[in-house]
Amino acid sequence: MSVSFLCALLPNAALADNVFTDLEKPVAHPLGQYEELTDSKPHDTDAAWTKLRPATHASWASIDIRYRRNDIPRVKAQDVWSGKAWRGERVNGQALLWTNKALADVEVTATELRSGKNVIPASAVRTNFVRYVMTDELNKDGGGCGYRNAADFDSSVVADVLDINKSLPIARNTTQPIWMNIWVPQDAKPGTYTGQITIKGKDMKAQTLQVSLQVLNRTLPEPQKWSMNLDLWQNPYAVARYYDVPLWSKEHFDAMRPIMKMLADAGQYAITTSIMYKPWNGQTEDHYDSMVTRIKHIDGSWSYDYAVFDKYVDFMMNDVGINRLISCYTMIPWNLSFDYYDEATSRVQFIKAKPGDEAYAEYWGNFLKDFSRHLRQKGWFDKTCIAMDERPMDAMRAAIKVIKDADPEFKISLAGVYHEEIERDLYYYCLAYGYKFPKDVLARRRAEGKISTYYTCCTEGFPNTFTFSAPAEATWMALHAVGGDYDGYLRWSYNSWTRDPLRDSRFRTWAAGDCYCVYPGPRSSIRFERLIEGLQDTEKIIQLRREYKRKGQKAKLE
Amino acid sequence: MSVSFLCALLPNAALADNVFTDLEKPVAHPLGQYEELTDSKPHDTDAAWTKLRPATHASWASIDIRYRRNDIPRVKAQDVWSGKAWRGERVNGQALLWTNKALADVEVTATELRSGKNVIPASAVRTNFVRYVMTDELNKDGGGCGYRNAADFDSSVVADVLDINKSLPIARNTTQPIWMNIWVPQDAKPGTYTGQITIKGKDMKAQTLQVSLQVLNRTLPEPQKWSMNLDLWQNPYAVARYYDVPLWSKEHFDAMRPIMKMLADAGQYAITTSIMYKPWNGQTEDHYDSMVTRIKHIDGSWSYDYAVFDKYVDFMMNDVGINRLISCYTMIPWNLSFDYYDEATSRVQFIKAKPGDEAYAEYWGNFLKDFSRHLRQKGWFDKTCIAMDERPMDAMRAAIKVIKDADPEFKISLAGVYHEEIERDLYYYCLAYGYKFPKDVLARRRAEGKISTYYTCCTEGFPNTFTFSAPAEATWMALHAVGGDYDGYLRWSYNSWTRDPLRDSRFRTWAAGDCYCVYPGPRSSIRFERLIEGLQDTEKIIQLRREYKRKGQKAKLE
Repeated sequence: MSVSFLCALLPNAALADNVFTDLEKPVAHPLGQYEELTDSKPHDTDAAWTKLRPATHASWASIDIRYRRNDIPRVKAQDVWSGKAWRGERVNGQALLWTNKALADVEVTATELRSGKNVIPASAVRTNFVRYVMTDELNKDGGGCGYRNAADFDSSVVADVLDINKSLPIARNTTQPIWMNIWVPQDAKPGTYTGQITIKGKDMKAQTLQVSLQVLNRTLPEPQKWSMNLDLWQNPYAVARYYDVPLWSKEHFDAMRPIMKMLADAGQYAITTSIMYKPWNGQTEDHYDSMVTRIKHIDGSWSYDYAVFDKYVDFMMNDVGINRLISCYTMIPWNLSFDYYDEATSRVQFIKAKPGDEAYAEYWGNFLKDFSRHLRQKGWFDKTCIAMDERPMDAMRAAIKVIKDADPEFKISLAGVYHEEIERDLYYYCLAYGYKFPKDVLARRRAEGKISTYYTCCTEGFPNTFTFSAPAEATWMALHAVGGDYDGYLRWSYNSWTRDPLRDSRFRTWAAGDCYCVYPGPRSSIRFERLIEGLQDTEKIIQLRREYKRKGQKAKLE
Repeated sequence: MSVSFLCALLPNAALADNVFTDLEKPVAHPLGQYEELTDSKPHDTDAAWTKLRPATHASWASIDIRYRRNDIPRVKAQDVWSGKAWRGERVNGQALLWTNKALADVEVTATELRSGKNVIPASAVRTNFVRYVMTDELNKDGGGCGYRNAADFDSSVVADVLDINKSLPIARNTTQPIWMNIWVPQDAKPGTYTGQITIKGKDMKAQTLQVSLQVLNRTLPEPQKWSMNLDLWQNPYAVARYYDVPLWSKEHFDAMRPIMKMLADAGQYAITTSIMYKPWNGQTEDHYDSMVTRIKHIDGSWSYDYAVFDKYVDFMMNDVGINRLISCYTMIPWNLSFDYYDEATSRVQFIKAKPGDEAYAEYWGNFLKDFSRHLRQKGWFDKTCIAMDERPMDAMRAAIKVIKDADPEFKISLAGVYHEEIERDLYYYCLAYGYKFPKDVLARRRAEGKISTYYTCCTEGFPNTFTFSAPAEATWMALHAVGGDYDGYLRWSYNSWTRDPLRDSRFRTWAAGDCYCVYPGPRSSIRFERLIEGLQDTEKIIQLRREYKRKGQKAKLE
């Protein structure tokens, strides 16, 4: 209050303007057509582009490269894309269109794919213009963590967004990538299917590129039956803000539905719920808030209401189809400050207390007893994990005690480094990249039905899924889970969008793209499609291993 | 947010220090012994004081004068205080002790008062040291309203606080007033009672002053049976802050009990309740908050909880004994912003809406329907007034419509100027000083059992009850109610204490003392005792008029 008052008296209006301009300018939140930001990097000259004959080219290209927007692509012209897939698998291709003249109303269409009398319908062949988003780079130390001042980092636009706009103008002297994804129907007959995609527009000759897909006689299960425990944290608050809809309104759920279904289709296990205010101290553009109403009455008693929690969980389970785990964040947040509505003061108040304090045990103990009762009544208790963040051992032990005192059957999760002392208490234990479970512990955990995974975050410069990371790194994330003998992979961010996520993936902390891997619309990304590729590969490995084991094909197993 | 951020970066620490020093210094909140502030006004010299023989004097003096602390009082020495009282009446006297040497452990004791074999016990004779509090002065325009910068106003200490400390050190060269109040028992026998008060201390000869009280053969009813509608608004939030106790805790009620009983003993009618956040836009040091819990659920429905309201009203009615009216502030606050706990965002949110808006009607209509149900269930409905503040006529009419739509039997109150258009809708109508009810309207209102009073506030430079106002002005306030043919008197402030109310009655707005007339402890004041005197006088006039009317003593009536 006194601070604002002081500031209101500041005579230096120019200073104030400078500081506020960026922050307070209203940010449009496009869902349809939008313009990309300008790239300030050097690129192929107008002279080089002018030499291009004919003016417009198209070719298949690599899915491992983020082609630069203002350079002539160095690709060997390739008319035919060839690939193999299991039934039920999604496969990716990337085509490029590059031109030295402005084109209007450019569109891409796909034909059905035919193998004799068998057909994969055109609707299974998705094509998206790949759009460019502003990114930055790693820290000088090679990591991606910490506060960053935009001026200290080199910025450029990179190809990542898979746009949902069906028609685009293409500027002269640019390369426009086109992403193709074929989702082979579960019941497709094996065989080699062919078809084509066609790029049309005003002022250009239609360009046709061939597709040849060999469907193998193997079937990938539906994503929600995959074995790998994928855990990308959802942020419903970012959706409400970007779509400018009231939290938990019908409009909010309508906006979330396709975004969350995309995640379900990647095999997501867990519903991310927040059971307190700012479980991660509001580190994202849109902080998480409590999905639980806690009221402290003037007689000292507490009451709880789960209307938001129930509605969100029910939506995710029964509408979206993510129904294997409910993660509740968090018992030991980074800032030990716990919210409740205080009847006495008619305000939201905060208890500052640490695990081991009586006030901590009262706040959480009371809640968890009621929460257990509620979860059991809903039939959700066995799927629910009370999550902790990494803290000193005595704090984690004190928190575990409070949970177990409230209900000894509560499942508990932790993402952090390996701690032998509490490993047995953790139903879902996710280790930081580089940490391993001892072999015997892992075997026991699997026998007990526990989940043992790994995570990456800003710490790793490589591999990672920043917007400037090489696309294949996303695939590697999933493969490392099977390679490193984990049950799955966690990343903290599915859609914690920045202020203007479609155009600018940079954030006040961490390397660009750390906060999200899908875009409003919803729009998928090169990163997300390549992660799904990796998840499919791990599932294929798991399926094959099972089969070889079942059939005793030892040689193949090794 | 961005403002704080800017400020955090301000390099000018010295500036920040200057600005914050005054505001952020912790303020001690004395309840027992404390030191008064220094007076910077010129006063009698050390030389003048040194001539005083003997060193220490005592005498009765006038209750109409605030004697100056550092001046030798110009009083004719007077050993005997004489007064008259009805049975049940309280009468005031003021004695002075002045000295040119420091005295320690000074105490005042009173004997019982005797009239032959009849006795008024010593406990009925209350004596208090009068303490000095910092005050300021009127605006240059003669009023007391508006924001004030302390440096623009002359300050001085004035005698007002009736201290509860039984023993005080007296500095050399000072005058120490002593207030005497005798509360004549309801069953005292008529006659002239005599006794004395004695002032003792280290380093002084005990001084004895005589008391002679004639008790008349008339009886004043108990305060809660007085006819005049006294309405001084209580501020429970200020008590919680000053006493540093949790709102609505046992400690809070324990602290409020004697403060509110003092008000009950002045004949207070109404319990001041707040049914929204900041009914007066937080104009006091401690803003009023909502005593009602309002929750907006994600399905759009509302629920209400009255735990605080009920506990406070029940306390005031049944513990304190103020039980004739429940005033609920307010339907049209100065800032049209209405609070509720929002289940969706887990936050207290505000609806901005004005009377006539659909959102206003929804917010208030829903609430008032439920409130009516609740009040009827508690048996309080007939005593409850929904209060409005003065607003443009169409706003007041729109608010009245919302109230009547919710329950046509709701009582409504307004403090403002006279409006013929809505007068009939107002059960309790309090006019600004200077406004009159037309005679026929007043007669009709009385026949209908409605309340028609007047109020003063900062507007009036004189008469008023600022800490620098002459004591008799407080008495006049009550007498004007009967003189101006009103049913009572309202002032907005009983105990909206300043930051350091015992020592400094100045506030950021309004002339000093505007916000309160009793002090923490609780301690009464010269102003409050003289107001009670006036209230007693009005009650005596009313009693006598009734008697003369009953007995047809026309001459006496005029």
